[in-house]
Amino acid sequence: MQHCDTLILADWCVPVEPHDLVLTEHAVVVNDGRITEILPAADARDRYEPSTLIERPGHVLIPGLVNAHTHAAMTLFRGLADDMPLERWLREGIWPVETRWVSAEMVRDGTRLAIAEMLRSGCTCFSDQYFYPGIVAESAVEMQMRAMVGTPIIEFTTPWAENAADCMRKGAEEVHDRYANHALISSCFAPHSTGTVSDESFNELRVLADQLDSPVQIHLHETAQEIADAIKETGKRPFDRLQEHGLVNSSLLAVHAVHLTEDEISQFADAGVSVAHCPRSNLKLASGIAEVATMQKAGINVALGTDGAASNNVLDMLGEMRTAALLAKARANDASALPAADALRMATLNGAIALGLADSIGSIEPGKWADLTCIDLRHINSQPVYDPVSQVVYTANANQVSDVWVAGRHQVEDGNLTRIDENELLQRASEWRSRLHNGKETKST
Amino acid sequence: MQHCDTLILADWCVPVEPHDLVLTEHAVVVNDGRITEILPAADARDRYEPSTLIERPGHVLIPGLVNAHTHAAMTLFRGLADDMPLERWLREGIWPVETRWVSAEMVRDGTRLAIAEMLRSGCTCFSDQYFYPGIVAESAVEMQMRAMVGTPIIEFTTPWAENAADCMRKGAEEVHDRYANHALISSCFAPHSTGTVSDESFNELRVLADQLDSPVQIHLHETAQEIADAIKETGKRPFDRLQEHGLVNSSLLAVHAVHLTEDEISQFADAGVSVAHCPRSNLKLASGIAEVATMQKAGINVALGTDGAASNNVLDMLGEMRTAALLAKARANDASALPAADALRMATLNGAIALGLADSIGSIEPGKWADLTCIDLRHINSQPVYDPVSQVVYTANANQVSDVWVAGRHQVEDGNLTRIDENELLQRASEWRSRLHNGKETKST
Repeated sequence: MQHCDTLILADWCVPVEPHDLVLTEHAVVVNDGRITEILPAADARDRYEPSTLIERPGHVLIPGLVNAHTHAAMTLFRGLADDMPLERWLREGIWPVETRWVSAEMVRDGTRLAIAEMLRSGCTCFSDQYFYPGIVAESAVEMQMRAMVGTPIIEFTTPWAENAADCMRKGAEEVHDRYANHALISSCFAPHSTGTVSDESFNELRVLADQLDSPVQIHLHETAQEIADAIKETGKRPFDRLQEHGLVNSSLLAVHAVHLTEDEISQFADAGVSVAHCPRSNLKLASGIAEVATMQKAGINVALGTDGAASNNVLDMLGEMRTAALLAKARANDASALPAADALRMATLNGAIALGLADSIGSIEPGKWADLTCIDLRHINSQPVYDPVSQVVYTANANQVSDVWVAGRHQVEDGNLTRIDENELLQRASEWRSRLHNGKETKST
Repeated sequence: MQHCDTLILADWCVPVEPHDLVLTEHAVVVNDGRITEILPAADARDRYEPSTLIERPGHVLIPGLVNAHTHAAMTLFRGLADDMPLERWLREGIWPVETRWVSAEMVRDGTRLAIAEMLRSGCTCFSDQYFYPGIVAESAVEMQMRAMVGTPIIEFTTPWAENAADCMRKGAEEVHDRYANHALISSCFAPHSTGTVSDESFNELRVLADQLDSPVQIHLHETAQEIADAIKETGKRPFDRLQEHGLVNSSLLAVHAVHLTEDEISQFADAGVSVAHCPRSNLKLASGIAEVATMQKAGINVALGTDGAASNNVLDMLGEMRTAALLAKARANDASALPAADALRMATLNGAIALGLADSIGSIEPGKWADLTCIDLRHINSQPVYDPVSQVVYTANANQVSDVWVAGRHQVEDGNLTRIDENELLQRASEWRSRLHNGKETKST
């Protein structure tokens, strides 16, 4: 008998790579935080003596979900400004509140709430863009969550930084340098949008990103108005401006990409640009519906993100995956577009590719980190099970996530967070509600 | 002190009528299955001595959700045929399976599974169209669920009936006559679509519906192909054919109504036709996206339905409501379209109106049945709470439904079904899976 740290047995295992494969009655072996073997359950029982044995009948094991775009701390603004279009939502709903309330404390509390929500819904890695990125990284490490921490870059003064140059300086120092080679934290630069970053700053960014070998992500072609405004102000579409600054390459993650011309789709594909598709946010802000099937057919890697809780309003990658799978069909006028297995791939491996982490996460393969999510299909709404992948994509709710491991650490067990005091998080959320709500009109009686 | 059967106290109560009102710290008084009073919690504690006191801090009480369109028994076909367009899905995926497997036993087991799923997700009334409608009604009564039982009408022979005339005869006898004046069961006729019902049968239906004072519901203008086929075969659009048969009136519930001309929208509004909007099914089958905002602006009553589990794949009215609220904004290119309060109304009172039951259900008002749903907002994904209606529509999952009452009977308590043996349902679902799966190819390894 051979020792191993953890042996996980589930009725079904969907490794995502190879594509569209469902393994029945298999086991996943975990050692030192990494997947070391996948083998039939019967063989595993014969060969391994695990420190921890996890048996999950009626469950399906999938790679941990990768949230390719969020603003984690905005959980504290959840539901504060609904039913408004993007520009008004930003200018009237969000930016004034951020100016008044964003602080290291707010970012810490909001990010912690977000990480708890994401873990509970099966997500093991999130790509973030928010102020105080050093606090975001610190919170992720404390909670043992994997994160791609984006340093936001914006010209105007925020509670966190003076201007774009200050953003970049702080990001390089507080995130890139501090977390170099960290097992859980990666870093990138996240200019907010072409409308809020100057040519000078883009030039500076390009030099810095090259120098630090940092990826770049940006909200791009999210709304028709963004493009119209850019043309009016600069004579160029936002994507063309990024081209001119030499930022269009395989290190670029274009968030949203709702409005692309045929030619832009080709250019994305040729340059190896990834897209972070955020369907619920795009619907909620009436930004439009991205052409996922067309982009994928062109060869673009499309990942999936929830965006922030203020425009969604949840950080639930299972729900987001379902919306993506349903919406892609209507958008393409083709019910076979984005079938269940492709949607699951979008929410896992494609996210890993988009974040430059495909060598270490995104699928259940030996050598990768044991970032794993186990889902209980023995719920009324997921029965009967003809195809476990269909049940995951089209039926499973967040509360069916029984277990989550991040780098082999058991973060969720029997649906409960193992290392996080949920009551403390709820208490803090309630305190923030009181602070923000004071003086705000309500229609309550 | 005054006696009452049940006194329910929740932090928030959203009665839906009056519109857009949130009552804080109120109580709902229930006697003999009906709501008798809504008053401030403090007054209620002073005045009432309830047999059962229900205290729900951090919860919001809403009217029970009304599922305006489903095929309940199809839960047993959940996930059996995904990622196919409507016509192929029907002809290759569903109809062959139905021909082989539909029986009184299958309808009973599938309907019971569906009712359990709907109750667990806060739904207290469903409008059904499926074979063996007498069994559907019987199952609903056994499980104490409210139902509008539609008798399906279709020309071709099914395991249940020989032809359309046989459908109507059986429906009149097994549902209409047997459940006349039943507290939980209403009945209607449900011709499948204009493509599957002859002129002769429509004439017969009109006479019968008038005679029995029965409402009519039909899948109408679900896909562009349905309309094109109708024009090819009859020279008329499906709606025009219904007009000619005198079936367009305020007793008609048009299911889907994805493809309407401006003129048809006016005619719907003028005639008082209601629409059952089924957004997830329409997306999944790539049927299109209904113009909800336009229809509502024209004065059409738009209700919400899940459709059957084979094209959704869940019967989750909370999730459906969220999809409807998000999708309407993108469809209308207006982020203020279908705000949260309107979405909640669509999923409750509009459903009651569509089913002709608005006098007795659909809102929390004295005199109406105590069909109530209580939702726990003390979950990470629903915190903090600035606006409880926003949290219900944009954040709440089915597992947050703590309590459900149907006509005052406590059907779900602390998230658990009180009168239904869930294990027995799961066992039956598993048996059906084995029967249907035998001989079916799988890609499992």
